[in-house]
Amino acid sequence: MAETPYVPRLAIGLLHYPIMDKEKNIVATNVTNFDIHDIARAARMYGVENYYIIHPMKEQLMFVERVLDHWRTGQGAKFNPSRRRALERVKTAESFEAAIKDWGAENVMTVATHARPIEGVETLSFRGLRERMYDQKRPCFLLFGTGYGMTEEFMKSLTVILEPIKGAPPDDFRHLSVRSAVSICLDRIMGSW
Amino acid sequence: MAETPYVPRLAIGLLHYPIMDKEKNIVATNVTNFDIHDIARAARMYGVENYYIIHPMKEQLMFVERVLDHWRTGQGAKFNPSRRRALERVKTAESFEAAIKDWGAENVMTVATHARPIEGVETLSFRGLRERMYDQKRPCFLLFGTGYGMTEEFMKSLTVILEPIKGAPPDDFRHLSVRSAVSICLDRIMGSW
Repeated sequence: MAETPYVPRLAIGLLHYPIMDKEKNIVATNVTNFDIHDIARAARMYGVENYYIIHPMKEQLMFVERVLDHWRTGQGAKFNPSRRRALERVKTAESFEAAIKDWGAENVMTVATHARPIEGVETLSFRGLRERMYDQKRPCFLLFGTGYGMTEEFMKSLTVILEPIKGAPPDDFRHLSVRSAVSICLDRIMGSW
Repeated sequence: MAETPYVPRLAIGLLHYPIMDKEKNIVATNVTNFDIHDIARAARMYGVENYYIIHPMKEQLMFVERVLDHWRTGQGAKFNPSRRRALERVKTAESFEAAIKDWGAENVMTVATHARPIEGVETLSFRGLRERMYDQKRPCFLLFGTGYGMTEEFMKSLTVILEPIKGAPPDDFRHLSVRSAVSICLDRIMGSW
């Protein structure tokens, strides 16, 4: 009997605090409707176990829960069953710690994504991350920032940073939406190409 | 003197007509604000020459032009220069033919993206498309549908269809947002990984 191929364990989180704004103040950003749907659909497509929307404010998480209810059990579930399936694995959490705890995986590698390298944190290539996930069979929690990105202090509390996605020459433009960044990272890590 | 590496020529288009709705009627879809911004940013990042928003109705194209004006020359240009740069290469067109003509490239390979293969149209893998673009130096116009996808008849008028992006086993969920699909396709075709 053939051995079942190992399926890497991955959860992702969209962090809304602690986040930098344009002037490098630490802020909490608002949850965006498109961030819920686009990222849920990409996560579902690439076999992500859970997608956590992380925000410290109850009001923001209640907004997310209302959207989820509409599409999972309300009118939307009948109108668009694909969307219901995409949203099945979306969860809310008040903090990154709460999300990790809820997931319940052990020996988790926590990974930040960022447009630039950060001093004092190990940077891992996409290939390197795939190796740790497939060869070492280590579960991975991949975190994406909103606004102008996670604070450096927060990133330093994680295991590694993933190498930035480079822009085309000559100007190396790096200003993807978080929805695009998630999609590309999931394809590079989990894609079957 | 070292030879300058060849940079493949790519334009993309977001088609709003002729599009299928849920019941397979042929319709024109509305332009979505996030489709303008997210796709423009990904296109700029991966060196796409022009990003065409294609719609037969003047009112819809005027809406797009107002958004572009705001960020390219209005208040938005000062507030967010990165967004201005991303939107520099966004153009509107009333039809696919008008977009191709505006781009002005010769011997263009026209490529549809679709979640499923279509009978009667050649399907090309991502690797195959890269080869034609880099080795044969053939300019490529890559088209993305909105709504429930382009009509089969329209796709049959193009050179090839790009292989669908597969969902993870066991359920092969394929319901990406067009913003995610564009991002992933550009990374696979133009990415420097």
